[in-house]
Amino acid sequence: MAKEIRNKEENYSEWYNNLVIKSDLAENSAVRGCMVIKPYGYAIWEKMQAELDRRFKETGHVNAYFPLFIPKSFLSKEAEHVEGFAKECAVVTHHRLKADPDGKGLIVDPEAKLEEELIVRPTSETIIWNTYRNWITSYRDLPILINQWANVVRWEMRTRLFLRTAEFLWQEGHTAHATEQEAIEETRQMVEVYAEFAKEVLALPVWVGAKTPSERFAGAVETLCIEALMQDGRALQAGTSHFLGQNFAKAFDVQFTNKEGKLEYVWATSWGVSTRLMGAMVMAHSDNNGLVIPPVLAPIQVVLVPIYRGEEERESVLAHLDDLKAKLLAKGLRVKLDDRDNVRSGFKFTEWEVKGVPLRIAVGPRDLANKTVELAFRDTLKKEIHPLEGIEDKVVQIMKDVQENIYKKALDFKEKNTFEIDSYEDFKVRIEDGGFFLCHWDGTAETEAKIKEETKATIRLIPEWDNPVPGRCMVTGKPSTQRVVFARAY
Amino acid sequence: MAKEIRNKEENYSEWYNNLVIKSDLAENSAVRGCMVIKPYGYAIWEKMQAELDRRFKETGHVNAYFPLFIPKSFLSKEAEHVEGFAKECAVVTHHRLKADPDGKGLIVDPEAKLEEELIVRPTSETIIWNTYRNWITSYRDLPILINQWANVVRWEMRTRLFLRTAEFLWQEGHTAHATEQEAIEETRQMVEVYAEFAKEVLALPVWVGAKTPSERFAGAVETLCIEALMQDGRALQAGTSHFLGQNFAKAFDVQFTNKEGKLEYVWATSWGVSTRLMGAMVMAHSDNNGLVIPPVLAPIQVVLVPIYRGEEERESVLAHLDDLKAKLLAKGLRVKLDDRDNVRSGFKFTEWEVKGVPLRIAVGPRDLANKTVELAFRDTLKKEIHPLEGIEDKVVQIMKDVQENIYKKALDFKEKNTFEIDSYEDFKVRIEDGGFFLCHWDGTAETEAKIKEETKATIRLIPEWDNPVPGRCMVTGKPSTQRVVFARAY
Repeated sequence: MAKEIRNKEENYSEWYNNLVIKSDLAENSAVRGCMVIKPYGYAIWEKMQAELDRRFKETGHVNAYFPLFIPKSFLSKEAEHVEGFAKECAVVTHHRLKADPDGKGLIVDPEAKLEEELIVRPTSETIIWNTYRNWITSYRDLPILINQWANVVRWEMRTRLFLRTAEFLWQEGHTAHATEQEAIEETRQMVEVYAEFAKEVLALPVWVGAKTPSERFAGAVETLCIEALMQDGRALQAGTSHFLGQNFAKAFDVQFTNKEGKLEYVWATSWGVSTRLMGAMVMAHSDNNGLVIPPVLAPIQVVLVPIYRGEEERESVLAHLDDLKAKLLAKGLRVKLDDRDNVRSGFKFTEWEVKGVPLRIAVGPRDLANKTVELAFRDTLKKEIHPLEGIEDKVVQIMKDVQENIYKKALDFKEKNTFEIDSYEDFKVRIEDGGFFLCHWDGTAETEAKIKEETKATIRLIPEWDNPVPGRCMVTGKPSTQRVVFARAY
Repeated sequence: MAKEIRNKEENYSEWYNNLVIKSDLAENSAVRGCMVIKPYGYAIWEKMQAELDRRFKETGHVNAYFPLFIPKSFLSKEAEHVEGFAKECAVVTHHRLKADPDGKGLIVDPEAKLEEELIVRPTSETIIWNTYRNWITSYRDLPILINQWANVVRWEMRTRLFLRTAEFLWQEGHTAHATEQEAIEETRQMVEVYAEFAKEVLALPVWVGAKTPSERFAGAVETLCIEALMQDGRALQAGTSHFLGQNFAKAFDVQFTNKEGKLEYVWATSWGVSTRLMGAMVMAHSDNNGLVIPPVLAPIQVVLVPIYRGEEERESVLAHLDDLKAKLLAKGLRVKLDDRDNVRSGFKFTEWEVKGVPLRIAVGPRDLANKTVELAFRDTLKKEIHPLEGIEDKVVQIMKDVQENIYKKALDFKEKNTFEIDSYEDFKVRIEDGGFFLCHWDGTAETEAKIKEETKATIRLIPEWDNPVPGRCMVTGKPSTQRVVFARAY
C-alpha cells in the first residue's frame, strides 16, 4: 500500500480527503453530495452510536421513529424555521415511474403527481410536533423524552465527506416539557452529555456555551453547542442542543392542561449530533501517516503481525500469535491477526498505520526465543519491547493510557491555540494562524457581522464563565460583560 | 384504560389494528402510508435489530451505509429488477423550495429541477452494485459480506401498520462472491439464520424453502424464504434470501480476475427482513386481552404492581417492591415498578396486559405478612402464589419457560393447521378456513396462476424434503416430484 496521503502542513484539506479515502472510512457515491460510509468507517460510527445511545437512555430517553417525509406545508408553520430549512432540500413530487413509450428506460409518470409535495426531512421538529399534538393532553403526559436515529437530507452545494454531505446520519432528540425551567435544564443536560461524550469517547476537549442570536438554530430561543479545535486551527461545531421555547407548540397547537387545570403551550427542546463527528475525530487526532483513532472507538484496537521467513517460521510464529490473540480477546479487546501471506510485513505496518489501529504487536522468531513482543504505538509512533508474560493486562492498560494521551494532546493543542486578544488589529493578523480567540464584543449583530465579513471569523459561542470579566468591545470599544469565543469554522 | 380491542374471532383485521394502536406500538402519521413507530414498539424493534445484528456479525458480515437516493437510470439497468421495483416509488425531481410570490407558504422552485430524477431507494441492489464495481478487481477482494440497516420506500396503495407501509425500516444484506457455489451457500446460510432467529427470538416456527419463479424477487435466480402462520390461518412471509446469480454484476459490469487470471462476473446474494416482523410477532401470539410478547423481545419483562389502601400500606408495599426490583434488575431482567398513584391497580393490570408484559408480580399487605408474591402469567393468563424467598431465580427461569411455551403454542397451532390435501375440490373448501396446505403441483406457472385466481391461495414455498414423495398435481393430474406449501397470505 503506497501511502499517498498529502502532508497536512502542505494542504490540510487534501490531507483530510486523502485520509478518509485511503483509510477506507467513506467515499463519494454516484449521487451528488451523498457518501458511501464503508465498513471500517461505519464500525466507528456504530461505536459512537452505542456510546451516545447508552448516555441518552441513562438520562431517561427512549428511541422512536418518525416519517422520512414532511408535507411541504408543515415546513412553513414555524416562521423562523421556514427560513432556515425550507430552502435547499429534496422535494418528492411524484410517486410512480413508467416505461418510456419512446424507447428504453423510465420516465416519471405525469399522472402520478402528488397533491402536496413531500420534503425529505432536513430535521424533524415539524413532523414530530405535529405528532406530539395527539399525544399530549395533560401534564401527566409530560415530559416526553424521545430520540430518533435517522438519515436527513440538506441539499448542500459544496460537500465534503462527513463534514458536509447532502444526506447524513444523525440522532435528533425531541423533548416536550410542562415547564420552561425543565426544558432549559434538559437543553443544558444534553449539551453536557455531548461534552462528556466528546471528552471520554472522541478524546476531544470542547468549549461549551451558547450561540449568538444570528447563529441560532432556526426556531430556537437558545442554542447551546460544543465546539472543538481542528489541527489547522479552525473550529468545528460538534453538537447542538436547542431550547425551543413554545415556538413549535404554538406553530402546531400543542397544549396541555397543567396541574392547576389551565391550558398551556408545551415547552420544547431538540438536540443532535451527526456523522460530522467522524470528520471531527479524523481532523483532530490524525497525522501524516494516517488516522489516529481513540481506542474506545477503534474497530480494531490491536493488530498482530507475524514476522517470518519461510513456511516453517511462519507456522511457529502464527501458532504463537493465535495463542496471544485468544488471550487478548479474553480481555475483551478487539484484535485482528493479519495472517495474509500475499503481502510483506512492511506493507501491513503501513496499512494499519493508515487505518489508525492504536497498537501493533509484531512477533518474529527472535521474539519467540526471547519471550518478548514488539509494541508499536500509533499515537506516538514509538516502539517498545515487552516481555510476553502478562502482555494481555499490559495491553488493557495501554488502551486506557492511549485514550488519555490522545485527549491530553488535543487538550494541550487547544490550550496552546486559545488566545485572549483585545486589539482588533491584532485579531485580524492572528486569526490567519487559526485558534480560538477570547475577545470582548459589544453584543450587537452589527459588530458580529462586521467581524465576520472582515475576518471570516464567527462567534463560536458565549461561554458561561465562573467569573465573567467585563471589558470593552475590541471593535467598537463599547462595554462588554464577558469575553466570547471567536474562530474561523468548518 | 378501557380495553377497546375487538375480538379476533369477530374481526381479525380490526383486532390487529386495535392492538397495535392500544398497545402503543405504532400509529399512522400525517404522511400517507408512513407510520410513526412509538417508543414501546421501537424498543421491541431495537431488540430484534440487536439479535439479528449479532447473528450477522457472527457469520462474518459487517455493516455499511449507502445513499438513500438512486439515480433513475440505475433502476432500469437490470431487466427484471426494473419490472419489480421501478413502479410505485417516491421520485425526487427538485432540490429547492422558495417563498410563494403570491402570498404565504412555499412553492417548488422551478429553476431547481434535477437533471436526472432521484428515486428514494425501494431496495439497494442497484446503487450497491454500482459501488461494488469500484471495490472489486481480484478474487482477493472477495467475498464482500455487507449488511445495511436502513429505511426504504415503496409507494404502496393500501397500507397497514407494520405489515405494509410506504416507508419501512429493514436490513438488507448484499454479498459478492467469487464462485456460484459460495453465493448459493451464503443464500442458504442467511435463510437459516432467519429461521433460527424466528424460532429463538420471535418464538415463531416457520417453513423454509424456495419461491416458485413467479414469486421470486425481481432479478433473482432463486429466492429462499421463511413463512409463518398467523392465527387467522393466513401465511406471512417473514424473511427472504436471494441468490442473484451474475445478474447485477452483468448489469453494472462488475468483473474480477479469478485465481486462474481470467476475468469473470461476480456472484451475488441479497437478503432482508423488515419491521414487518413486528406485525408477525403481534399476529402470531397475541390474544383478545392484548399483546403477548416473547420475553426475549419484551421491553419490560416483569412489571411490579403494589396493592394497598391508604398511604401507610402504600409506603410499606413500595419499600418492599423497591427491594424486589433491585434483586430482579441484578439478575439482568428488565423490570418496571408501576408506582403511579393516580390510577387503580385494576387499571394497571389491564394496561400491562394490553402491552404484553410477560410476567406481572403483585404484592399487597397480605403478601408482606405471608412473605409471598402473586405471579400473573401473560401468555396463559394463569396466576400463582409463590414464596418471596428466591423469587428472582424463579423469574429468570420463568422467562425461559414462557419463551419456550409461546413457541410451543405457535408450533402446535402450525402443526394443527398444516394439511395434506390431494383433491382440488377439497382444497377449494378447506382453504377458506386457512392454514398451510401440502399439495402436489405440476410445476407450471399456468396451474399456479389458475389456483391463485380461483382460490386466492399462492405457493408460499417449495420445501426441501428429506424424502420427497412424488404424486400427481391436484389440479391437472400431471406428475409432481414433491408436495409444495400453499396458503392464503399477507
